[in-house]
Amino acid sequence: MERSRDVYGGRPRGFILWFTGLSGAGKSTLSQAVRLRLEASRPVEILDGDEIRTFLSRGLGFSKPDREENIRRIGYVARLLARHRVAVLAAAISPYRESRDEVRRLAAEQGIPFLEIYAQAPLEVLVQRDVKGLYKRALAGELPNFTGISDPYEPPEAPEVLIRTDQEPVAQGVERILQALRGRELLEPA
Amino acid sequence: MERSRDVYGGRPRGFILWFTGLSGAGKSTLSQAVRLRLEASRPVEILDGDEIRTFLSRGLGFSKPDREENIRRIGYVARLLARHRVAVLAAAISPYRESRDEVRRLAAEQGIPFLEIYAQAPLEVLVQRDVKGLYKRALAGELPNFTGISDPYEPPEAPEVLIRTDQEPVAQGVERILQALRGRELLEPA
Repeated sequence: MERSRDVYGGRPRGFILWFTGLSGAGKSTLSQAVRLRLEASRPVEILDGDEIRTFLSRGLGFSKPDREENIRRIGYVARLLARHRVAVLAAAISPYRESRDEVRRLAAEQGIPFLEIYAQAPLEVLVQRDVKGLYKRALAGELPNFTGISDPYEPPEAPEVLIRTDQEPVAQGVERILQALRGRELLEPA
Repeated sequence: MERSRDVYGGRPRGFILWFTGLSGAGKSTLSQAVRLRLEASRPVEILDGDEIRTFLSRGLGFSKPDREENIRRIGYVARLLARHRVAVLAAAISPYRESRDEVRRLAAEQGIPFLEIYAQAPLEVLVQRDVKGLYKRALAGELPNFTGISDPYEPPEAPEVLIRTDQEPVAQGVERILQALRGRELLEPA
């Protein structure tokens, strides 16, 4: 809802950076690095997909409707925080385009800037890295709904920032995200 | 987590006012009235039990474990917001003492002030009022888990504020809540 006075003393606006991409593509790494750059000068909160599953989505699985519901919940909390001027960094696989677009639309309805950050790397690279050992299990048929292997991932068609995490160093990806924020006057010039 | 600098420019601290009580006892009325008094000078957010059920707890019912999970989720979101200096007004029946105490404990762990506000009125009065027509249905045996009729309500043992909503006018209840905040230096003196 709109407020009649600025009860925040002119502090920076809230916004949502929505990190999407396959498991292991670098969403958490990037969001944590962005947080480090922002948190000295403004409120920041990371909404991590795994954490949210523990705290808000216990009981939900990885079927399409359950994933959609999970994303809807992250979106709801992200808007609540962004409304109060927090820079929200949401990092969740969020494989369905329609779900991400719904969060974007609901943010726009409340005047909250929403930037989609696509952390991308070729599947072969992720399978090779396999930090959590999940790809191995998914390829062995042990994980029935594993995004990219046994479950679909619908890449963003027009992400505000696309980062090829197998080619760009983290610091460069972060810099491009900050640039995107500066371009929208969501961050002071460097 | 702790922050090294005050990125909020000395704005007021966040806190949680947790309104508990039977359906129709006045939780929403009181929380909305408190919001009106606070929102001119500071960020405020109401977390309404019914709204949360729509956005974060679709699929949860009214069994004990489901109610506990619902309260846990409201508590999680309340802490996220309060951490960013929002005055959070949570209004949910929250019938189980243990659930409310858990939210209180987790808030305390993060240094977030938590005040339990007990909106109380005798069951006879609520049955007589029956604004939503729910007591009639519950007494007819149509609502199997209706707090106060077919489901337990465990009253707070030491609420920070107890308001007898059948005896006190709303304005007086609100004033006592504001006094409790002033007493804890969470609100400027009147």
